[in-house]
Amino acid sequence: MLMDLSNRSKEFVAAIPHCAALGIHVVDTANAAVTLGLPYDVRLVGDPATGVIAGGAVSVLMDTAAGAAVMAHPDAHGLTATIDLRIDYMRSATPGQRIIARAECHHVTTHVAFVRAFAYDEDETRPVAIANGTFTVIRAQPSGTEA
Amino acid sequence: MLMDLSNRSKEFVAAIPHCAALGIHVVDTANAAVTLGLPYDVRLVGDPATGVIAGGAVSVLMDTAAGAAVMAHPDAHGLTATIDLRIDYMRSATPGQRIIARAECHHVTTHVAFVRAFAYDEDETRPVAIANGTFTVIRAQPSGTEA
Amino acid sequence: MLMDLSNRSKEFVAAIPHCAALGIHVVDTANAAVTLGLPYDVRLVGDPATGVIAGGAVSVLMDTAAGAAVMAHPDAHGLTATIDLRIDYMRSATPGQRIIARAECHHVTTHVAFVRAFAYDEDETRPVAIANGTFTVIRAQPSGTEA
Amino acid sequence: MLMDLSNRSKEFVAAIPHCAALGIHVVDTANAAVTLGLPYDVRLVGDPATGVIAGGAVSVLMDTAAGAAVMAHPDAHGLTATIDLRIDYMRSATPGQRIIARAECHHVTTHVAFVRAFAYDEDETRPVAIANGTFTVIRAQPSGTEA
Repeated sequence: MLMDLSNRSKEFVAAIPHCAALGIHVVDTANAAVTLGLPYDVRLVGDPATGVIAGGAVSVLMDTAAGAAVMAHPDAHGLTATIDLRIDYMRSATPGQRIIARAECHHVTTHVAFVRAFAYDEDETRPVAIANGTFTVIRAQPSGTEA
Repeated sequence: MLMDLSNRSKEFVAAIPHCAALGIHVVDTANAAVTLGLPYDVRLVGDPATGVIAGGAVSVLMDTAAGAAVMAHPDAHGLTATIDLRIDYMRSATPGQRIIARAECHHVTTHVAFVRAFAYDEDETRPVAIANGTFTVIRAQPSGTEA
Repeated sequence: MLMDLSNRSKEFVAAIPHCAALGIHVVDTANAAVTLGLPYDVRLVGDPATGVIAGGAVSVLMDTAAGAAVMAHPDAHGLTATIDLRIDYMRSATPGQRIIARAECHHVTTHVAFVRAFAYDEDETRPVAIANGTFTVIRAQPSGTEA
Repeated sequence: MLMDLSNRSKEFVAAIPHCAALGIHVVDTANAAVTLGLPYDVRLVGDPATGVIAGGAVSVLMDTAAGAAVMAHPDAHGLTATIDLRIDYMRSATPGQRIIARAECHHVTTHVAFVRAFAYDEDETRPVAIANGTFTVIRAQPSGTEA
């Protein structure tokens, strides 16, 4: 079952052309939690003076990790889409370093999944950015008792 | 003056390697308002079954337009960076169509600029997504009267 | 029909004990748009040094106006609840003045309503705060064609 | 030093008339982290059919806890104000139970403090709501090396 969920989130990420173009790949996947990686690439730079990766590229990574975490939730079935997403940018990622994003789908209602994600460069003690969002979800076993 | 601001936001966008890689370009720029375009490209697709562009690519476009709108504000001086950004995704963009994002820097305090942006495909009556965020700002003429 | 929707949003607000306790009342209601008022009250003050109303009280007003706007949408049926809400605080409300919040439900999907709201004191040219959020919705006529 | 910070956040909360009116009180305070409580009160009810407390009241509690957490941060000096705040509502609070909000100021830049908060009823394993926001901050020892 967990193996299936793990495969499902890997296939979800692998099938997205924009992720392939950016080099986004699955680092780890578990029950309702997914870690993705984004290699440093000069084409992703947002500030040519410093070589810092564009916040938007970090945003794509976190959004994808969040969607994959919904796919990896045991109560989810089928596809998901972002409803809304907030990202807080705490600091610049260090140039030259890979970015990883860890996302967790922490709550699921009948129609909405709640997800948070953290992005790090090689210093995993200080997040580069934090994301909080809601995603559409189709429950595997629809619950009639929750709104 | 407005010409200078207009040039400043154009240079801001043109200097970002990630924008160049995506094909993001300035469509229009005015006092505290900037419109950017993103051509349809199969490398930006988020859903291979439909050819719909990834929400993350739309997010990059809106984030960049918002930053450029801060640069185009008469009270701003120097660089800006995203503090936080919320994006609401109302509908999928129509495959094959160019996306545009219109951003407006609607309020500036001593240290923070408030920006909203709307993204559209060729149907400009129904936004694809809406963004609201805050950005760092350096005031051109620091005001001692506002907190 | 519009009369019914108008009444529905008025009843929605009138039935909330917390709104009654704060003095929140309907100023105007239309198709998918609702304006609520909040009288100045020393019990709502957030900063005793200035007499400025607490941002949280403005937040309650905007959240309620947003929910009422969902109730006033012709495609909505039955109750609604806030899924998530972002509020940007641009400036302090002027002490002694009534606050009004104008909310509009600008998009509805099968399960989610998107709402924005603006809060003003007596100077309606400069918003005090802006809210953007998503709410649960039950469609009056479920659409099978929209995700 | 920590005692001073603790007192500072207690005074911050005690001095807010709106908090006194709601019965909001300090449960615990530590370095950059504050827990506040909100007793159940029929005047705070948002849904008369169920007796559930209004989401807006929970929002006021989390916003205040977040501001107090900024005040309790060793690098902060003087007052703070909410710049923006996002709240995700995962479930209804159980009627009759006290709500607590735990806030942590997890990052501070020269002008902006980043805060998250969690709200619980008596079941602390499942949050009622989560908040993420940015607040103004005046650094006690301004750093010239951070943007």
